[in-house]
Amino acid sequence: MEPTCSPAPKPQAKAPAYKLTSRVTHPQNSLIPLGSFVIGGPEFIIMAGPCSVEADPQMLGTAWDVKVAGAHIIRGGAFKPRSSPYSFQGLAEEGLKKLASARELTGLAIVTEVMDSTDVDLVSSYADILQVGARNAQNFSLLKRLGQLNKPILLKRGLMNTVEEFLCSAEYILAGGNPNVILCERGIRTFETSTRNTLDLSSVLAIKEKSHLPVIVDPSHASGKAHYVAPLSKAALAVGADGLMIEVHCDPANALCDGEESLNPEQFKELMLTLKDLAPHFGRQISTIANHNPQLAENA
Amino acid sequence: MEPTCSPAPKPQAKAPAYKLTSRVTHPQNSLIPLGSFVIGGPEFIIMAGPCSVEADPQMLGTAWDVKVAGAHIIRGGAFKPRSSPYSFQGLAEEGLKKLASARELTGLAIVTEVMDSTDVDLVSSYADILQVGARNAQNFSLLKRLGQLNKPILLKRGLMNTVEEFLCSAEYILAGGNPNVILCERGIRTFETSTRNTLDLSSVLAIKEKSHLPVIVDPSHASGKAHYVAPLSKAALAVGADGLMIEVHCDPANALCDGEESLNPEQFKELMLTLKDLAPHFGRQISTIANHNPQLAENA
Amino acid sequence: MEPTCSPAPKPQAKAPAYKLTSRVTHPQNSLIPLGSFVIGGPEFIIMAGPCSVEADPQMLGTAWDVKVAGAHIIRGGAFKPRSSPYSFQGLAEEGLKKLASARELTGLAIVTEVMDSTDVDLVSSYADILQVGARNAQNFSLLKRLGQLNKPILLKRGLMNTVEEFLCSAEYILAGGNPNVILCERGIRTFETSTRNTLDLSSVLAIKEKSHLPVIVDPSHASGKAHYVAPLSKAALAVGADGLMIEVHCDPANALCDGEESLNPEQFKELMLTLKDLAPHFGRQISTIANHNPQLAENA
Amino acid sequence: MEPTCSPAPKPQAKAPAYKLTSRVTHPQNSLIPLGSFVIGGPEFIIMAGPCSVEADPQMLGTAWDVKVAGAHIIRGGAFKPRSSPYSFQGLAEEGLKKLASARELTGLAIVTEVMDSTDVDLVSSYADILQVGARNAQNFSLLKRLGQLNKPILLKRGLMNTVEEFLCSAEYILAGGNPNVILCERGIRTFETSTRNTLDLSSVLAIKEKSHLPVIVDPSHASGKAHYVAPLSKAALAVGADGLMIEVHCDPANALCDGEESLNPEQFKELMLTLKDLAPHFGRQISTIANHNPQLAENA
Repeated sequence: MEPTCSPAPKPQAKAPAYKLTSRVTHPQNSLIPLGSFVIGGPEFIIMAGPCSVEADPQMLGTAWDVKVAGAHIIRGGAFKPRSSPYSFQGLAEEGLKKLASARELTGLAIVTEVMDSTDVDLVSSYADILQVGARNAQNFSLLKRLGQLNKPILLKRGLMNTVEEFLCSAEYILAGGNPNVILCERGIRTFETSTRNTLDLSSVLAIKEKSHLPVIVDPSHASGKAHYVAPLSKAALAVGADGLMIEVHCDPANALCDGEESLNPEQFKELMLTLKDLAPHFGRQISTIANHNPQLAENA
Repeated sequence: MEPTCSPAPKPQAKAPAYKLTSRVTHPQNSLIPLGSFVIGGPEFIIMAGPCSVEADPQMLGTAWDVKVAGAHIIRGGAFKPRSSPYSFQGLAEEGLKKLASARELTGLAIVTEVMDSTDVDLVSSYADILQVGARNAQNFSLLKRLGQLNKPILLKRGLMNTVEEFLCSAEYILAGGNPNVILCERGIRTFETSTRNTLDLSSVLAIKEKSHLPVIVDPSHASGKAHYVAPLSKAALAVGADGLMIEVHCDPANALCDGEESLNPEQFKELMLTLKDLAPHFGRQISTIANHNPQLAENA
Repeated sequence: MEPTCSPAPKPQAKAPAYKLTSRVTHPQNSLIPLGSFVIGGPEFIIMAGPCSVEADPQMLGTAWDVKVAGAHIIRGGAFKPRSSPYSFQGLAEEGLKKLASARELTGLAIVTEVMDSTDVDLVSSYADILQVGARNAQNFSLLKRLGQLNKPILLKRGLMNTVEEFLCSAEYILAGGNPNVILCERGIRTFETSTRNTLDLSSVLAIKEKSHLPVIVDPSHASGKAHYVAPLSKAALAVGADGLMIEVHCDPANALCDGEESLNPEQFKELMLTLKDLAPHFGRQISTIANHNPQLAENA
Repeated sequence: MEPTCSPAPKPQAKAPAYKLTSRVTHPQNSLIPLGSFVIGGPEFIIMAGPCSVEADPQMLGTAWDVKVAGAHIIRGGAFKPRSSPYSFQGLAEEGLKKLASARELTGLAIVTEVMDSTDVDLVSSYADILQVGARNAQNFSLLKRLGQLNKPILLKRGLMNTVEEFLCSAEYILAGGNPNVILCERGIRTFETSTRNTLDLSSVLAIKEKSHLPVIVDPSHASGKAHYVAPLSKAALAVGADGLMIEVHCDPANALCDGEESLNPEQFKELMLTLKDLAPHFGRQISTIANHNPQLAENA
């Protein structure tokens, strides 16, 4: 079943500033290969893994758990953007190697953040998908450099970027020659403090109206609360997102960062089964999980 | 099936400022009678109708259409809060009478906004449910007055109110002696301009975690775009809201206000059928619509 | 010396929604009588007093102190808008009587908040100037009622109101027949938490560009920090505001509300002397303070 | 006369995350050499110049004009951060050369933006002061690289950064070994649209309370309106900022970017004379302008 998205806008005479990103120049949804999957089509793509790559048992164990649960892509941060210079900055290349081991173990593609244009060569030698973090969403030099690659780029919306600015940032990458951009809504900064950010699910609609690029949702960073992740994930599926990015850690209480928003493997598995069952009702599917008896879903 | 909401927080030693509103003092979900229905339970409550009550054919026709489509409650504004004093201010008592006619025609309860404590007697002589608009969310005098009634109060979140402030506003009504408060998330004001407001679905989770009061979502005022209403409605159901408020107008292009965000009766009916089918997957039901083609419906 | 304000905009063909409030229909600055003073002219008007009227010694003592220090108008809250229903709500009519005593003692006019249209008759029987609080900035019923008076109305900008909405709120009062509106910038709500609100001094410029109404600044409520009040007051004078509203309490540590942002009488007096000296450099004067040591004062 | 700043906070037992940036570890104001001047002391430092370096006559002409008017530092952008990849990106090294010519002509130091760690070597070979733009305020890789230099870094506050985050970004540079950081408040993003950003002058107070680093204000980018620059500049001086960054263009109507917010040389000269006269009243001086007859100030 084709994914149902907001109806394409009536053709406009004039393309906006984000020409290549715009549906005016490219009316069909983009289908972007991610490892052995495709995003932007019926498959509801799940990227999962820990916030940071830590020691081997953690990374490999979590990678295996999320794969078994049906994730399509493994995530993990080797280069961490931290507000404070004294916080854990990530394992750098050591972390990239562990991610590569995780890929070898699971057969799943890996996505990881690249923070600087000087790191692009190194990170792209390991990663299948390169991520641009929210705080680098308007690091135009980095975006230009990523435009020179062919690999898919997962572009996170800036904390304070309008949808227009978000699409213009994507335009930097497409204008450089790389059409493989996946957008990610991860919450915006508002006055509300009950959540870490305010998840703006309407942006999924605005993006799909204005652009052909696929868009996923990160409910973990948006809410900052592990027990909000499942309901927000369901809402993201319902609103028409093409997938999710979920933080999963084998031992959230002892995670080096973002423990409060990470699911443990058991919770992640349960969420995946729920999404598996719900997906067809929203024009999606999760083919990485075998069909099962819905009544036994909680027992699996 | 009981509605699934966020797990109740572990009992806290100390109740917050919003004592009566808080789950600490009232751990069970509140069930509030609305006409012949109950909100806060399995029934996913839909309030629908035009932004403003206009001429009789419009109000009665729209009321009939939304009832046939399965709405539980009729809405319509007789007293309109307009930014400018020169905009249409509403039909006042004339509008209340038309709403009463709509109730007589359809058998459905009516909800309408009361803007001032001086109007409470008048409005409550007609309305079954009184609504406090977003711009009056901290009109404490009005809230105190409504606390003296028994009728249900639909309290909209202020454009700029945190969830904490929202619950404190509810507390004014409960502290006055009226426990029948339904909260409504209708979007908050942020820097983003692609939607009229930014719908904050996470607030539904925060509210249900902190309070026992039912909470509905108004995707019409939140987005300001008719074609966003259906997907946002599904997302609201998915995140665990207790219902929706939807603007419906028999002729949106000629509505006296909010035409761009109103559904026409055909679109509303289609949305209701979709929600009917989806509801059971989220622990809800819409019993006002008969079961129809089994291939379109899961077994409720 | 005439106060220097932003140059009037070139005449526009079409008046905006806030017609009477706009400079297009009224190019000259409005001069509004306040007690024995006039605001909107060269005199830099200072309104000062406690957040809430408390017991007699406090109100009368503080009133005397601020008068001696050069304030033009006494403020004090008898009806307090509190987020929580359990917080001190104000002394109501008892408080109004104490304010009247303060007027009798000092000879200065009093300004106090009216929260509801049902209180307008009572409050206007005591107050010289009626204040609309930030949370009632779009309480259109209240604004309409105040439009029926002749007394000056001090209208505070809503926490989340644009300048356009602010001027439309003023329009409700002018459209009712009352031209005596003084606007007050008191900070807007943003994501920044180092201050209680974010003081938006640019709004003074936007207001003076679009409207003829006088505008004062409330640095106390804006910052929430007593030690920020003096520098923000000087900045407000420098940007071209017509005056200030300052919270002063004889014993801030024991104030019933807003103690952290209140100046004590000594601090207030010191601030007044500083403003007295600075005023002529910005086209203003404070005539309520006698010229003092020439080395501390520029020639006025 | 020593600059008057907010009183240092009482010594705290525990330093915040931004240790080296904090007044707890460094109670005295930092004095940072900028060219032949020092910022953080009594001299009110003015950085002025066009948004972008354009053709030679423009850059050299404007540089000369601002020097004659009393500016301390020349600014100009050679690498421009533009939301859209199709907008003018700056003259790059060609622009740096023109800036160097401007330095040679005027004897004034130059400040220019560096957008990427790969450009640091190139830009620092020309510039005296390197600027980090608002959209790179949390480009941690860039901040780390700049921490390895000795040259002064002008760090702009991010559009959506709290003061805490701003100081943590500065900490990256100090932690790298470079103590020469000047902070710049340039407005934050809010819901208000009458100005391009919302200038947050209170942040100057918060910064000076928490940190020893000097802080200047950029009223040009904050307001986006040339006719707001003068009053906001005066307000910045009054609130206690250590200086200003002002956009000046010899022909604003034809500027390649930011024309609406640029002053022409005549307006800039007039503003400098006004600031010269006002500075001593706020504990500052502008020694680059000869003392003149204040009564002739407008005629100069």
